[in-house]
Amino acid sequence: MGLVVQKYGGSSVADAEGIKRVARRIVDTKKDGHEVVVVVSAMGDTTDELIDLAEQVSPIPAGRELDMLLTAGERISMALLAMAIKSLGHEAQSFTGSQAGVITDSVHNKARIIDVTPGRIRNALDKGNIAIVAGFQGVSQDSKDITTLGRGGSDTTAVALAAALDAEVCEIYTDVDGVFTADPRVVKKARKIDWIAYEDMLELASSGSKVLLHRCVEYARRYNMPIHVRSSFSGHVGTWVSNEKPTKPEGGEMEQAIISGVAHDTSEAKVTVVGVPDKPGEAARIFRAIADSEINIDMVVQNVSAAATGLTDISFTLPMADGHRAIDSLEKAKAVVGFESLRYDDQIAKISLVGAGMRSNPGVTAAFFEALSGAGVNIELISTSEIRISVVTRADDVNEAVRAVHTAFGLDSESDEAVVYGGTGR
Amino acid sequence: MGLVVQKYGGSSVADAEGIKRVARRIVDTKKDGHEVVVVVSAMGDTTDELIDLAEQVSPIPAGRELDMLLTAGERISMALLAMAIKSLGHEAQSFTGSQAGVITDSVHNKARIIDVTPGRIRNALDKGNIAIVAGFQGVSQDSKDITTLGRGGSDTTAVALAAALDAEVCEIYTDVDGVFTADPRVVKKARKIDWIAYEDMLELASSGSKVLLHRCVEYARRYNMPIHVRSSFSGHVGTWVSNEKPTKPEGGEMEQAIISGVAHDTSEAKVTVVGVPDKPGEAARIFRAIADSEINIDMVVQNVSAAATGLTDISFTLPMADGHRAIDSLEKAKAVVGFESLRYDDQIAKISLVGAGMRSNPGVTAAFFEALSGAGVNIELISTSEIRISVVTRADDVNEAVRAVHTAFGLDSESDEAVVYGGTGR
Repeated sequence: MGLVVQKYGGSSVADAEGIKRVARRIVDTKKDGHEVVVVVSAMGDTTDELIDLAEQVSPIPAGRELDMLLTAGERISMALLAMAIKSLGHEAQSFTGSQAGVITDSVHNKARIIDVTPGRIRNALDKGNIAIVAGFQGVSQDSKDITTLGRGGSDTTAVALAAALDAEVCEIYTDVDGVFTADPRVVKKARKIDWIAYEDMLELASSGSKVLLHRCVEYARRYNMPIHVRSSFSGHVGTWVSNEKPTKPEGGEMEQAIISGVAHDTSEAKVTVVGVPDKPGEAARIFRAIADSEINIDMVVQNVSAAATGLTDISFTLPMADGHRAIDSLEKAKAVVGFESLRYDDQIAKISLVGAGMRSNPGVTAAFFEALSGAGVNIELISTSEIRISVVTRADDVNEAVRAVHTAFGLDSESDEAVVYGGTGR
Repeated sequence: MGLVVQKYGGSSVADAEGIKRVARRIVDTKKDGHEVVVVVSAMGDTTDELIDLAEQVSPIPAGRELDMLLTAGERISMALLAMAIKSLGHEAQSFTGSQAGVITDSVHNKARIIDVTPGRIRNALDKGNIAIVAGFQGVSQDSKDITTLGRGGSDTTAVALAAALDAEVCEIYTDVDGVFTADPRVVKKARKIDWIAYEDMLELASSGSKVLLHRCVEYARRYNMPIHVRSSFSGHVGTWVSNEKPTKPEGGEMEQAIISGVAHDTSEAKVTVVGVPDKPGEAARIFRAIADSEINIDMVVQNVSAAATGLTDISFTLPMADGHRAIDSLEKAKAVVGFESLRYDDQIAKISLVGAGMRSNPGVTAAFFEALSGAGVNIELISTSEIRISVVTRADDVNEAVRAVHTAFGLDSESDEAVVYGGTGR
């Protein structure tokens, strides 16, 4: 029996009852003979409440101080969880990110882990204790200031600690039963995926699947650390994310489908730069203006230029939250870049089909487009990677489009059993 | 212009408005040319709310984890305060007790400061920054675990930091205008004291005055650090606590009155051990039983024994919260100690008259007792130190007794001006 790292999100520890339920689950794992390290997020809406307080005292809260503030959230949940475990008769100690040796760079509010030195955690385990670690936080290597890893950072903390402690598995507990072939709120017949390879999970994460964040999966792939995503409200087996197909309990390997799933994302907007002179360097000027505003763009498409005018249009998608900033930057750069006008559209959705199997299965693209066409959905932009096809459609069409594609690729669940949800529904 | 340490209590930073008001006051001090270090408590009722959460998950929360939990409170207030200062255009950095170098012993929930190594605070000041430090918390020298100093610990943090940084003064901001000659809620004509010596302040603090805790004053006396207790809601000069009479702004020394004030305390109970054999070692057995339960007793009185029986009664007072535990310990020790019965009385009050002047002024005791007698108040126990006389009376008599003594010693304010109160009234 090896070491298990378990991560519990905010909805799993939203109140005293939740904390006690999680404590019992942790103790059960310990009783099974495992060494247990637990990474915990802040309770329920604590982080949002703290951000709200910060905005009340300062219109633009200073990064260092915002990190100091937000890390109070996990401090509360981890101490309560350790108490709850101790009151069940098992030894537990809580550790801040700094105490757990989570070393980061100095970029406040979205620091990156650069090293993990879990000496105190190892000591606690050697004494037979359960170690509870604050997710989402670390300490900067240079300034020794407290940092946070940004939203979803607790998952990354868990994977990084699991790698540093050479854990058997990193279990990510959440309020759904695992990773699904599509968002179950949109596709009633979405199926839980038993196993998915890192590369497919990475594509799903960057295409709008919310269960695991891209950064966490990337970290797991780099250290070849298996992730098991599962519900803290049920005892069900969830979704394994790893390099190699795990062995089924009844023998034989788990199969990965040709298509892992359909993801959608309605958080992006589309900018079209109209009437760009079709000559070398124009596109570079446009994207330099965007990059200088520290905006990440997603899809980019350039039309063939009209022979008569020598002008072309360039469209790209970006997070809706950055939309106005992007337009401002481009307007300012208009004289230098040279274009006619800008169009901004935030009524779009991105639908992505992901699966390593499409490498060796010609016809996937055709079947994808046929499914969309059959549902009467118009395609506005297309972009592909080796194992993913993404299209942009009208936002109004997204649910119908996802359902049509899900059915067309045989992903629908055969049973009519409702997906098991728990928690607060967030 | 030297270094000033300012401490703000929970009622001063109870909400965003309070935090912004305190931030403006800090910035004003900085603008006057001072280096400023600020010690801050948790916002309003945060600590009580966290204790309540702890009790929901664990009947007897583990000490180490309770400290980890409670220190989240100051983390929130200090980060918000630093943000608020920065949004006023001044540089501020917040530091946990551990980061500020507050080193303690390992007694969780009531640790004692054993060293202060404020290197990071000094660095922040040298860069021209305002340093905000979490009160009430430190880090244990041995285990490197987070500790708390117990209730009122933020005042001690402030004095300890002031001493370690060689500050000019430690300003303790609270919701009253200073130390008064009696509790203004009881005595409408109580006067604010302009200056009081450490020794008188120590006696007031151990006699029921809540403004400063004994431990904090003792620390200040040891390092000869002047304390200025004042309101965070007004600009008034408060009460100076120091060794030497400070110079008045208009020249000349401040005078200390013969009597500094009248304190009262209704948080104690009285235990009477009835029928104790009057022979050597009996009293020792009684107080060993109490001491072994880690209960601190206050006043002790033994009656002359009745010649006929050779038995005597021993009465003592102790914190009401420890009353039942004391009775249990004595009942268990009854066979060894040898006494007839126990009486327990929690309807008592202690009234104390404090003033270094009573050393050289005979007749103070007589005048004290005459005042009580004139008010029809019966005295049940008496105890004295060189500069304090305390009596125990019925709890019902306490307000009238305090007022009578306050008037008899000429402490009543001549003006009818109401005492300035601010804050939340707690």
